[in-house]
Amino acid sequence: MAPSEAPSEAPSGTPEFSGWSCPVPLRDHPRVVMGHGGGGAMSAELVENVFAPAFGGPVLAALGDSAVLELGGARLAFSTDSYVVRPLFFPGGSIGDLAVNGTVNDLAMSGARAAYLSCGFILEEGVETAVVDRVARALGAAARAAGVEVATGDTKVVEAGHGDGVYVNTAGIGLVPAGVDIRPQRAVPGDVVIVSGEIGLHGVAIMSVREGLEFGVEIESDCAALGGLVDAMLAVTPDLHVLRDPTRGGLAAALNEIAAAAGVGVRVGERAIPVPPPVANACAVLGLDPMYVANEGKLVAFVPREHAEAVLAAMRAHPLGARAAVIGECVTEHPGMVVARTPLGGTRVVDLPLGEQLPRIC
Amino acid sequence: MAPSEAPSEAPSGTPEFSGWSCPVPLRDHPRVVMGHGGGGAMSAELVENVFAPAFGGPVLAALGDSAVLELGGARLAFSTDSYVVRPLFFPGGSIGDLAVNGTVNDLAMSGARAAYLSCGFILEEGVETAVVDRVARALGAAARAAGVEVATGDTKVVEAGHGDGVYVNTAGIGLVPAGVDIRPQRAVPGDVVIVSGEIGLHGVAIMSVREGLEFGVEIESDCAALGGLVDAMLAVTPDLHVLRDPTRGGLAAALNEIAAAAGVGVRVGERAIPVPPPVANACAVLGLDPMYVANEGKLVAFVPREHAEAVLAAMRAHPLGARAAVIGECVTEHPGMVVARTPLGGTRVVDLPLGEQLPRIC
Repeated sequence: MAPSEAPSEAPSGTPEFSGWSCPVPLRDHPRVVMGHGGGGAMSAELVENVFAPAFGGPVLAALGDSAVLELGGARLAFSTDSYVVRPLFFPGGSIGDLAVNGTVNDLAMSGARAAYLSCGFILEEGVETAVVDRVARALGAAARAAGVEVATGDTKVVEAGHGDGVYVNTAGIGLVPAGVDIRPQRAVPGDVVIVSGEIGLHGVAIMSVREGLEFGVEIESDCAALGGLVDAMLAVTPDLHVLRDPTRGGLAAALNEIAAAAGVGVRVGERAIPVPPPVANACAVLGLDPMYVANEGKLVAFVPREHAEAVLAAMRAHPLGARAAVIGECVTEHPGMVVARTPLGGTRVVDLPLGEQLPRIC
Repeated sequence: MAPSEAPSEAPSGTPEFSGWSCPVPLRDHPRVVMGHGGGGAMSAELVENVFAPAFGGPVLAALGDSAVLELGGARLAFSTDSYVVRPLFFPGGSIGDLAVNGTVNDLAMSGARAAYLSCGFILEEGVETAVVDRVARALGAAARAAGVEVATGDTKVVEAGHGDGVYVNTAGIGLVPAGVDIRPQRAVPGDVVIVSGEIGLHGVAIMSVREGLEFGVEIESDCAALGGLVDAMLAVTPDLHVLRDPTRGGLAAALNEIAAAAGVGVRVGERAIPVPPPVANACAVLGLDPMYVANEGKLVAFVPREHAEAVLAAMRAHPLGARAAVIGECVTEHPGMVVARTPLGGTRVVDLPLGEQLPRIC
């Protein structure tokens, strides 16, 4: 790789903004690097150049958090995630909570209420069975809290040095209610952009416990299942356009993916984005932007303007949406691009992150 | 642990044969060992003592290869497996082929034709992207061959030294045809036990390439998708009682699980079990029993006696069942136990294996 094409160059360095494109051709990455798992441009590049051509198929091509498909007359959402978070237990949750809530939330982002989960463990030889038990109990409790049943499972064991204690994969299925069609492509200019609460808590919680950093108060992950919140929003109108849970890559990645998928511009006001003081402090110390920090119990919604006020009210009436806020709008200008108004009145482009600021946060 | 309670003691050493019980209490395994992933008694112990209490739920309790559940009026089979096979590519297949065929086959064992797969990769930092690409292509090709669509996916990356190149999880969903109720509990005395072809090929193929052993001829894995074969059998009668693909733990584990789940005895004739000469030779050299060696393209069926001849004929007319054979019957004697008649006219108990003869074969 020529030095001038260093992979650390941000996506904004290219003239091309049309979504899943990436400035770093895969041929310049002969080996997988951590950033390929970060949920940003490098992950997208892997999907575009490797997985999509290999698997084909119209469903995968939609690239939402979950696939919506027809089977036996039922309209189902189907999604999977593997969980490799380090450490396994952190303030506000564990890999077991994440494994349920992450997949339940991916289904909820299609408007589906999760019904059944599969659960695959990859255990490392030598991990304490008490640790496995604690993870399993957390997973079971989270499933009961989310109203989803673990229906099928699998366990593999790999030799010491080929895992990291416990990896978990869950896949989930749920029913998509009639008349609901929620996907990134449906964002249209005029849509109001709402975030369900304070951002950055999960990433900062992981960071603080992993790096032994202290920011005055203990910061807890926001890890939670969003099915009930989405149900409350759908009760106002089935015509929600887009829902996305801003996990890896944070709010910035979620907004960029939506802008790219729908070919619209997104304009947000930095001041309108709820950032809790401990997250703001931690980000200031570490030189991070809260918009890029992962969340595990938040969603961003693109809502038709006529329904926005009622949807916002319904969100605020739900415990997981109490701090919901309008943060911006969908515009015709700068299609595929996310622009933020800074507190000083300027504007800046919010890029799709290349990788993840912190690996293995979920 | 007292020396007299060594975990290498076989399950037959206990007076208790009621299925998922295990002679080695989990408290004697404070840490996970390779055998917990072997699909035998130790895996069952982990399910019984850790996962089942943590997750609860009537569906998981059924413990079949796949769960059968109702959703939106559709009767679905749902299953998952993680694949950690070493090496990634082996004679007759790859981890990509396994990841499709293994899950497709688990669905087929409920009589369901796989419709959609999810696919989660855990990549190790530093693995060549060309290797990931080759795995993805193999997976895509296997999916097309099996008529199943990869609908949704996920990629995580872990640091070098915390994975082994590529781990893959797939979950699958498929429709169970009306009138079909195939599960281990349905085995009844009088059922004829049929195996779809020659056993032991997958395990011996992996062993030969991993250990650099040569047995005169190259032995190829039997890795294949069994949906079409099952369809051919269902065309004869929807009333197949049990189907099971004898993967980890081989034919011995599959028959023991069925005997235990249904509370019936199983009697097989060793001479009737098709063991190809290269597998027999390899097992003789290595001191293995072919009944314990893994298969990835075979099934064992428990069929009502009145349909057995027609089902066997339908299997033999299918390319994947050409060498199908009746190997035994289901009996009222010795409930929960599998007994084999030896070629010399004696009988022996075929135990549920404790772990797996060879780790990471799928």
